[in-house]
Amino acid sequence: MIESGSATPRELLMAAIRPEIVKIEKVLVQDLKQATANADPLLSQVLEHGILNGGKRLRPLLVVLSSKLCGGTESGKGVDIYELAIAFEYLHGATLFHDDVIDRADMRRGKSSVNKAFGSIAAILGGDFLHSRSMNLVGSLGGKEALQIFCQATNAMVDGEFLQLRNAQNYNLSEEDYFSAVRGKTALLIAATCEIGALAVDAPVAERQALAEYGLSLGTAFQIIDDLLDYQGDVTQTGKEIGNDFKEGKMTLPLILTLETADKEDKERLLLLLGDREARQNGFQEACELIEKYKGFSMSKQKAEAMVTSAVSGLALFENEQNSTILSIFEALAQYVLTRNK
Amino acid sequence: MIESGSATPRELLMAAIRPEIVKIEKVLVQDLKQATANADPLLSQVLEHGILNGGKRLRPLLVVLSSKLCGGTESGKGVDIYELAIAFEYLHGATLFHDDVIDRADMRRGKSSVNKAFGSIAAILGGDFLHSRSMNLVGSLGGKEALQIFCQATNAMVDGEFLQLRNAQNYNLSEEDYFSAVRGKTALLIAATCEIGALAVDAPVAERQALAEYGLSLGTAFQIIDDLLDYQGDVTQTGKEIGNDFKEGKMTLPLILTLETADKEDKERLLLLLGDREARQNGFQEACELIEKYKGFSMSKQKAEAMVTSAVSGLALFENEQNSTILSIFEALAQYVLTRNK
Repeated sequence: MIESGSATPRELLMAAIRPEIVKIEKVLVQDLKQATANADPLLSQVLEHGILNGGKRLRPLLVVLSSKLCGGTESGKGVDIYELAIAFEYLHGATLFHDDVIDRADMRRGKSSVNKAFGSIAAILGGDFLHSRSMNLVGSLGGKEALQIFCQATNAMVDGEFLQLRNAQNYNLSEEDYFSAVRGKTALLIAATCEIGALAVDAPVAERQALAEYGLSLGTAFQIIDDLLDYQGDVTQTGKEIGNDFKEGKMTLPLILTLETADKEDKERLLLLLGDREARQNGFQEACELIEKYKGFSMSKQKAEAMVTSAVSGLALFENEQNSTILSIFEALAQYVLTRNK
Repeated sequence: MIESGSATPRELLMAAIRPEIVKIEKVLVQDLKQATANADPLLSQVLEHGILNGGKRLRPLLVVLSSKLCGGTESGKGVDIYELAIAFEYLHGATLFHDDVIDRADMRRGKSSVNKAFGSIAAILGGDFLHSRSMNLVGSLGGKEALQIFCQATNAMVDGEFLQLRNAQNYNLSEEDYFSAVRGKTALLIAATCEIGALAVDAPVAERQALAEYGLSLGTAFQIIDDLLDYQGDVTQTGKEIGNDFKEGKMTLPLILTLETADKEDKERLLLLLGDREARQNGFQEACELIEKYKGFSMSKQKAEAMVTSAVSGLALFENEQNSTILSIFEALAQYVLTRNK
């Protein structure tokens, strides 16, 4: 167990993971410096702006923790696990660079997005650079199998985005459609972080699978909460305005669950608000009230909680005295995903 | 030697490489089908539109030919060389998808660009899918060293694009600046195709280096001709309008050489045409006449010819009776780059 006292669970978690985050950040700064040593100064600037921006580093952290849970030491099987881990932050960065071009987003983590600060050309090309760097790290440090898992996850991500495009303004969207898009868009890559961490220390298949399952559930919960924050987040915490999904007619879980349970009149009203661009711009508040009335937010939260429970229970095979501290970090991380406000 | 008769050198080359191109095309179609078997139908459509479009397949061809020149048989060292080769077509496709977003290009190879036909979101994400697929193929079939060379080349490509951005509307650009951008933007990847083809059959270092040098010179010549076609190409052949580079103020070799040699009055006139957006739109014809006056086109062509000569002479170490047919294909390819009209 993480040592308690008067600290909150979140404070305890942060204290437990801080040394790892510090190391990850250090390796990230060094590697970025090395990767851009001979690069155009503007490219370096773009990458620093987009990567060294106070990200949570959740993905690299999961790589490191997973390798340790499977008995890995700092250096894995001769692999620098931190160097391997930052590949996931690069890939995440690459997708954010491109997403911000696609969504024309001005803000990212409370400061200007790369797209806003440097323009779409820099954001597209900078993303490509990071993409390539991430693949190179995974291929050279993790080997062929890791690269395969990684590429499958990145391609599923693209596929999930296409699915989401297709789903946009499809107001008949089912829960199943939503979870299918989330799996590709977010969860498979989180699963890959855990699995590749385990793979890096030659963990047995059962351990790899358990960690991949943990990542899949955690990633799904993470995305549900992300979608909830788009309705209920605090801009001073999240660094981005609320209501974007609704205004774009993007169907996320709170809306889907509400449309499933609302009476005829309320359902028609919600569809009326959704169906027209202008109505969407002005109708966000009213939509929130309708979602609240049918408990769309709390039901979404419950689904995320169920995911987290399932994530944690899947790690039972790791339970032994030696693992108790690191297992409690995995549990606390899963809880953190539920309660995060940014 | 390629068997002659009454055929032109180009016809002879085409006949000699046709069987390889047919195989490459077949593997490309199959792999694309497999890679998108479970993908969103729109994603498949986007990729087919962008990839199965009558491309020249120069890059995969160079991989296959290089492996054969180094004594490789169809399957290399257990590697399916055609499968490895198409990775380069995917990467090329990924860069074209993104370039067409960046340049807002409507046409590509005589039909609508992915960006025009499906929009920028599909073009960005589709490019990312191809990028990832290409890295996966190179990493799993070519191994770590091949992946390293490949990623270095792709990152140099991004860096070259940044350099070109920086160079845009810098009318003092030197030949050296131009060649430095071309190296990153085009030539290093062509060099990588040749080197990775050699690497796939465990060729000795000297052979790998000679092929990489060939690719570097060939790629540079290729880009010079590409830039000439932007002034002198025939839209019915190239599938794209001429004059784009000039209208965007992009400094390519014909302009640079003309500015270096023109008298004061003509230089000032050319700078006047270049320096103003509207003047660039209307001044293309006049600029062409000035470039012609100072032999900017023919001097550029000569530089490309010198590159081709250097490319071919670097392959001397492969000269023996057994290699004579394939070497003459390498020579003919280099000549083709000079005389291509699309």
